[in-house]
Amino acid sequence: MKLLLINGPNLNLLGLREPATYGHATLAEVERAAAAEAARMGAELAPWQSNHEGAIVERIHAAHTEGVAGIVINAGAYTHTSIAIRDALAATALPFVEVHISNVHAREPFRHRSYLSAMAAGIVVGFGVDGYRLAVQGLVRRLSAG
Amino acid sequence: MKLLLINGPNLNLLGLREPATYGHATLAEVERAAAAEAARMGAELAPWQSNHEGAIVERIHAAHTEGVAGIVINAGAYTHTSIAIRDALAATALPFVEVHISNVHAREPFRHRSYLSAMAAGIVVGFGVDGYRLAVQGLVRRLSAG
Amino acid sequence: MKLLLINGPNLNLLGLREPATYGHATLAEVERAAAAEAARMGAELAPWQSNHEGAIVERIHAAHTEGVAGIVINAGAYTHTSIAIRDALAATALPFVEVHISNVHAREPFRHRSYLSAMAAGIVVGFGVDGYRLAVQGLVRRLSAG
Amino acid sequence: MKLLLINGPNLNLLGLREPATYGHATLAEVERAAAAEAARMGAELAPWQSNHEGAIVERIHAAHTEGVAGIVINAGAYTHTSIAIRDALAATALPFVEVHISNVHAREPFRHRSYLSAMAAGIVVGFGVDGYRLAVQGLVRRLSAG
Amino acid sequence: MKLLLINGPNLNLLGLREPATYGHATLAEVERAAAAEAARMGAELAPWQSNHEGAIVERIHAAHTEGVAGIVINAGAYTHTSIAIRDALAATALPFVEVHISNVHAREPFRHRSYLSAMAAGIVVGFGVDGYRLAVQGLVRRLSAG
Amino acid sequence: MKLLLINGPNLNLLGLREPATYGHATLAEVERAAAAEAARMGAELAPWQSNHEGAIVERIHAAHTEGVAGIVINAGAYTHTSIAIRDALAATALPFVEVHISNVHAREPFRHRSYLSAMAAGIVVGFGVDGYRLAVQGLVRRLSAG
Amino acid sequence: MKLLLINGPNLNLLGLREPATYGHATLAEVERAAAAEAARMGAELAPWQSNHEGAIVERIHAAHTEGVAGIVINAGAYTHTSIAIRDALAATALPFVEVHISNVHAREPFRHRSYLSAMAAGIVVGFGVDGYRLAVQGLVRRLSAG
Amino acid sequence: MKLLLINGPNLNLLGLREPATYGHATLAEVERAAAAEAARMGAELAPWQSNHEGAIVERIHAAHTEGVAGIVINAGAYTHTSIAIRDALAATALPFVEVHISNVHAREPFRHRSYLSAMAAGIVVGFGVDGYRLAVQGLVRRLSAG
Amino acid sequence: MKLLLINGPNLNLLGLREPATYGHATLAEVERAAAAEAARMGAELAPWQSNHEGAIVERIHAAHTEGVAGIVINAGAYTHTSIAIRDALAATALPFVEVHISNVHAREPFRHRSYLSAMAAGIVVGFGVDGYRLAVQGLVRRLSAG
Amino acid sequence: MKLLLINGPNLNLLGLREPATYGHATLAEVERAAAAEAARMGAELAPWQSNHEGAIVERIHAAHTEGVAGIVINAGAYTHTSIAIRDALAATALPFVEVHISNVHAREPFRHRSYLSAMAAGIVVGFGVDGYRLAVQGLVRRLSAG
Amino acid sequence: MKLLLINGPNLNLLGLREPATYGHATLAEVERAAAAEAARMGAELAPWQSNHEGAIVERIHAAHTEGVAGIVINAGAYTHTSIAIRDALAATALPFVEVHISNVHAREPFRHRSYLSAMAAGIVVGFGVDGYRLAVQGLVRRLSAG
Amino acid sequence: MKLLLINGPNLNLLGLREPATYGHATLAEVERAAAAEAARMGAELAPWQSNHEGAIVERIHAAHTEGVAGIVINAGAYTHTSIAIRDALAATALPFVEVHISNVHAREPFRHRSYLSAMAAGIVVGFGVDGYRLAVQGLVRRLSAG
Repeated sequence: MKLLLINGPNLNLLGLREPATYGHATLAEVERAAAAEAARMGAELAPWQSNHEGAIVERIHAAHTEGVAGIVINAGAYTHTSIAIRDALAATALPFVEVHISNVHAREPFRHRSYLSAMAAGIVVGFGVDGYRLAVQGLVRRLSAG
Repeated sequence: MKLLLINGPNLNLLGLREPATYGHATLAEVERAAAAEAARMGAELAPWQSNHEGAIVERIHAAHTEGVAGIVINAGAYTHTSIAIRDALAATALPFVEVHISNVHAREPFRHRSYLSAMAAGIVVGFGVDGYRLAVQGLVRRLSAG
Repeated sequence: MKLLLINGPNLNLLGLREPATYGHATLAEVERAAAAEAARMGAELAPWQSNHEGAIVERIHAAHTEGVAGIVINAGAYTHTSIAIRDALAATALPFVEVHISNVHAREPFRHRSYLSAMAAGIVVGFGVDGYRLAVQGLVRRLSAG
Repeated sequence: MKLLLINGPNLNLLGLREPATYGHATLAEVERAAAAEAARMGAELAPWQSNHEGAIVERIHAAHTEGVAGIVINAGAYTHTSIAIRDALAATALPFVEVHISNVHAREPFRHRSYLSAMAAGIVVGFGVDGYRLAVQGLVRRLSAG
Repeated sequence: MKLLLINGPNLNLLGLREPATYGHATLAEVERAAAAEAARMGAELAPWQSNHEGAIVERIHAAHTEGVAGIVINAGAYTHTSIAIRDALAATALPFVEVHISNVHAREPFRHRSYLSAMAAGIVVGFGVDGYRLAVQGLVRRLSAG
Repeated sequence: MKLLLINGPNLNLLGLREPATYGHATLAEVERAAAAEAARMGAELAPWQSNHEGAIVERIHAAHTEGVAGIVINAGAYTHTSIAIRDALAATALPFVEVHISNVHAREPFRHRSYLSAMAAGIVVGFGVDGYRLAVQGLVRRLSAG
Repeated sequence: MKLLLINGPNLNLLGLREPATYGHATLAEVERAAAAEAARMGAELAPWQSNHEGAIVERIHAAHTEGVAGIVINAGAYTHTSIAIRDALAATALPFVEVHISNVHAREPFRHRSYLSAMAAGIVVGFGVDGYRLAVQGLVRRLSAG
Repeated sequence: MKLLLINGPNLNLLGLREPATYGHATLAEVERAAAAEAARMGAELAPWQSNHEGAIVERIHAAHTEGVAGIVINAGAYTHTSIAIRDALAATALPFVEVHISNVHAREPFRHRSYLSAMAAGIVVGFGVDGYRLAVQGLVRRLSAG
Repeated sequence: MKLLLINGPNLNLLGLREPATYGHATLAEVERAAAAEAARMGAELAPWQSNHEGAIVERIHAAHTEGVAGIVINAGAYTHTSIAIRDALAATALPFVEVHISNVHAREPFRHRSYLSAMAAGIVVGFGVDGYRLAVQGLVRRLSAG
Repeated sequence: MKLLLINGPNLNLLGLREPATYGHATLAEVERAAAAEAARMGAELAPWQSNHEGAIVERIHAAHTEGVAGIVINAGAYTHTSIAIRDALAATALPFVEVHISNVHAREPFRHRSYLSAMAAGIVVGFGVDGYRLAVQGLVRRLSAG
Repeated sequence: MKLLLINGPNLNLLGLREPATYGHATLAEVERAAAAEAARMGAELAPWQSNHEGAIVERIHAAHTEGVAGIVINAGAYTHTSIAIRDALAATALPFVEVHISNVHAREPFRHRSYLSAMAAGIVVGFGVDGYRLAVQGLVRRLSAG
Repeated sequence: MKLLLINGPNLNLLGLREPATYGHATLAEVERAAAAEAARMGAELAPWQSNHEGAIVERIHAAHTEGVAGIVINAGAYTHTSIAIRDALAATALPFVEVHISNVHAREPFRHRSYLSAMAAGIVVGFGVDGYRLAVQGLVRRLSAG
């Protein structure tokens, strides 16, 4: 079972900036932990990050042709502004789990709207970087059950 | 580490009605699975359900005096209408994780607003009853890290 | 054919207070008249009243196990604030008719929204207490036709 | 006691089109059933239909000079857009009952607003064509009580 | 100088119904008074009333070909709902004065919006039927000045 | 019969600035024309202008003790922002006519709301400075009729 | 294949008034061009215009019994205010193409909402009167494909 | 003169939790102080607290039959969500004073709306627990004056 | 302890106009009663009234340099429109109590918003002129406790 | 006459995914059909697709220097979110036609707003991929007429 | 080149109160610095401050007759509430630069709306008192270029 | 002191297109002028432009590692749509000044909202390209003072 982990804009700074909001783990560490969790559950997770909306759209397209079974995605700021990413996910029809490190509902009102949520197979918010692990777990179990 | 699992209105019907939305597992089964997950992580989880807003408020008050370390709560419909439950959680200052079985963001607009989310230590939405397990896991890890 | 008549908060005061808005008939009289109408049409109607949202939720749950065929409900103020009662009605999937004694559309704006209407098998508004009789009649005919 | 039954735009198609929404009874059948119900209660009901807002306004004006005691009206789409019909009803000050065959509250948001409701002596929604019979009954009883 | 006076829906009832809101003068009396005011100022005023939106649209079209110099219009309820009448007035480009007998700003919120106002050469509100006389006067003076 | 004419902020510039919007007549000319119209109808009109909200409030207070029978007021920009002037007019209970030289409904949205309109005995909009004359006329006739 | 072309209020003035907005072609010319386009594609188009909402509703009803296969409609101002026309189109279930000569999205906000669009088989906006030709073409191709 | 003091949800925690917001006095102390103030003014005050909306509704009903002359109520979170409590107060028609310990207008927007305020005989906000004493005083003086 | 009592626009008319809304006591009487209450509690209260927003701003500035300890303010209509007065109060950082004689929440919607409330040390609404006495008392106790 | 056809995000998947919404024709086929239509009318159409907002902005810039006469654009999801593309089109001042394959007005509300429409020379919606052909035709005719 | 510097309500307190928001420089110092900057650029700047909306309106009127070439204005709280000042600036048609010391967009939502901005020749926000210097510079350069 | 100047989408066209809105200076000229102003004040400014949101995000990230002390940014259309750029600026915590050449508050409503403003160290709007010079000056002075 192949999984894809997509991190969106600014998440390459994870662990380097704003630790009060996003914690001290770096993106590489977070990706390793997610991959380990996937491995523990018998799946294979490929991590990927981009700051470009169009690149994320194309990575989702590619996932479909690569035989990816499901996606864990933290689209960062694009969560709130990108219909293109929503449409890419809808087009590939791959089950995906939406993750947010911080509790977006405790932040500015414009972070309360997600273009992705209505189509997600699951949503994990506010657990810090531990949320990725939970998301992987939930996604694998759902794919296994499905 | 003592945990409390609160299920709100209509969740006593779990597994009995509307399986397309809520799945086939009964409340008893869900509670047992959550307790098992807690046990697996070295914690003890006490499940409780009520259809009464006031009773939920008082159960949260009691949790504090009983030494409960954290709460997993699926407040059902009260999620969207009860400021009293929010205030009870704020008053006790216990970390809590909010769970929703169905994807509330894919349903009626009045289910998109949660009075609890802004104060939650974590939110798990749309994984079906498997969400309780993820919530317990996330809560225990957070309490252990905290 | 068993029917349930549910009256919500403050309707125990019927006939005792605010006759300009709600008329002079007491709740007991209204319940008797509704039961008589049901009997006239070959059905049996059990009246019940509560001021507690949670109790109404549970009465609806019980209706299902008791073999009730349909519900006439005047949820009073909870009409405008309770998603829990809506969810209980949806969970049991019993046909129900929503009744309001006064013309809620001629009163404060917050009485113009009903959480129940979208799921109702019929709605009767503004006929005073005679509305219960019409509701029973409409419900029985629908159940007979169904 | 003379009653007027007004049906508005597109209701001449009743029974001919969209039976899933409006049922199989034709307008003529519905009008006959309403007249029969009126007769049963000792009143006389004159049915009338028009697709023209202005014609409906003038029919209401005429009702007053003809000695009509009350009106049952399903203004169809004009319910949601016509202040002129509201003003005609207000000008004649005849008691009227508003009827909708389908449950307008379960349809598009623009069908949730009625310019007539605030002035109605009663409102009957969602019972299919049986609603006309209930409306006649409720109106006659109210006029008799009045 | 030829003027046209258009009265819209329900204004044929003027003086016959709701005198508290609209006064005791009949439409014929109001039209005579407006014509007299026009005559006093050297103009000729043709009064016309209709309850039909489409008819009002066509009367405005005709005014243009008849050499009418300006219009006084009380579009009644269509003031708040008819873009077609607005477009007819815009198409003919005839200066017009909008009149309301009652103070629409002291009534229901849906009477506060006028589709005509933004294009009017003048607006007279709340003077009772005396407003027609003021409107004629203002319109004639403007046409004379223009 | 004593009348008061109040002009609000920036109206001292009448005729001096922005003639495309407000015309070429100066405030003094406008005041003389309004006084002449009042005299023609057997009334006496005292003109007054201020750029100060508080001063306008106090001028209205004084009108009452001076035996003024009615007020013509163009409150300028304070029309849209001053509840204090509305309250002063309500407190003295003097009938008043609201005037606007330009067509406020054809300008910015914030000019579409008037705090005064709901309490006005009449409203005259968009006739240029001729509107003052119409307002005086309408007010005198209403006071005479009253 | 029979087609119906409906033009709504004020479109009888086409080519006579406001050429800057609507062009110089008259309604007759536009209708001839549309019919010619239909003929070119092997269909027959009957043009019809009315300023009356109710008449348009009834023309749509008649289309169904006449065996019309599809409708091209420019409902003019009724586009933005008529639910009755929408309901007539829905009731007959005939495929229709919505046309607007001017670019309604570049005009007043109240022209941005169309009651028809959600049900249209195609929408053509802003091409001037050439839009009718495109609409006919698109409709015929769709009917042929369908 | 008998008075009733009602405290709503979470106010049983007064003095025990969140002293920064609600102060250090316990509910028992607050109730004693309020009763003492009532006694000082020659009235008798019975304190009562509940976390249940339905129970508060019923306590208000009972107040009427017990001969209570007026109510001081801090409905806590139900202030913002309960129409049922508003209706209970309206039904008994007892004068009541609304109290809030904290300054609700300086907190979350959903605390700015009160279903009770429009019907209150007086409102006291933000004085901490001293507000109860002011409320009692204001209520007694009003009842004495009334 | 020096206190300042500020009354805003139109409050000089207190007792002279609109007694149904504002009572029969004159401003002088109200000021004397407030001063007496202050004296009873060992404080000194200087009353002041103005209809001018700018003057109120400057009176608040002066209070600070005069050693005033706290302010009781009924800003009248400026409550709902003046950010300048809010800023003056914020700049001086003097504790203030906001008073309204009438129940503003039972009046027009534009009276429901107060620019002052979020910064007030206490708010007293709807007790008639007795509210000033309560405000003085609450303010003195708070200053003494502070 | 050189034309540019721009397709935006996810439209590279045309014909491969979601045929119920977007049909079975691939992007290459659609581009060939559009080019053929252009050729038939004596114009030359260059097709281009990108998932990147910035790339689309730059393609529009380039069009201007390449001597392109007009653009057909289906900006996909960027229609609803990209002001940058609107600004690029405005900067080059090239006439453009906006195309949507599906009926965006029958889909989610966030698809009802287009940042491009107000500046378009024409809009074609809901005809499936046939809309491109209509758009080309309309654009060429407009450029020829212009 | 004569310039006018207008400071609005509460800005006389500059440097004396709330230094965290407004800095430590006094109004006199700020005015001297602005005048020096003007002098450096060959212009003459007259500083003026008032807490009165009406006085600011009149100061702007006077500027025009005094031959002032441009205005730098920090209208303080009146920025958000005064249409009268906007109208005064529009009437004189003098170019003006709007200044705010603090970042109003990082403060309460009611500070995000400015009645002045749409007419300003330039806007400088959030630079502290240094903003005045930038505003003077920008204004002089614009007047010189103009 | 190193500064970065970022220009966003379409600003590469500066001076080439729409001079009425943006002036005649090219981007290169604007960048040279800004760099000269920086040099005059002892700082070094590196100009950079991109039409890609993701590239701007990454340029901001890089600024931090390059030791840039502050940023002047005109994000063009992304100002109103990009939360990703806001987050990049927040993550690096570099002081930045927001510049707009045109007066965005005098243009379409969607240009009135800026995702950047609330976090800006200063905002300069509407001075044409001279705004860059003012922004550089303001930023350098702030960095020097800081």
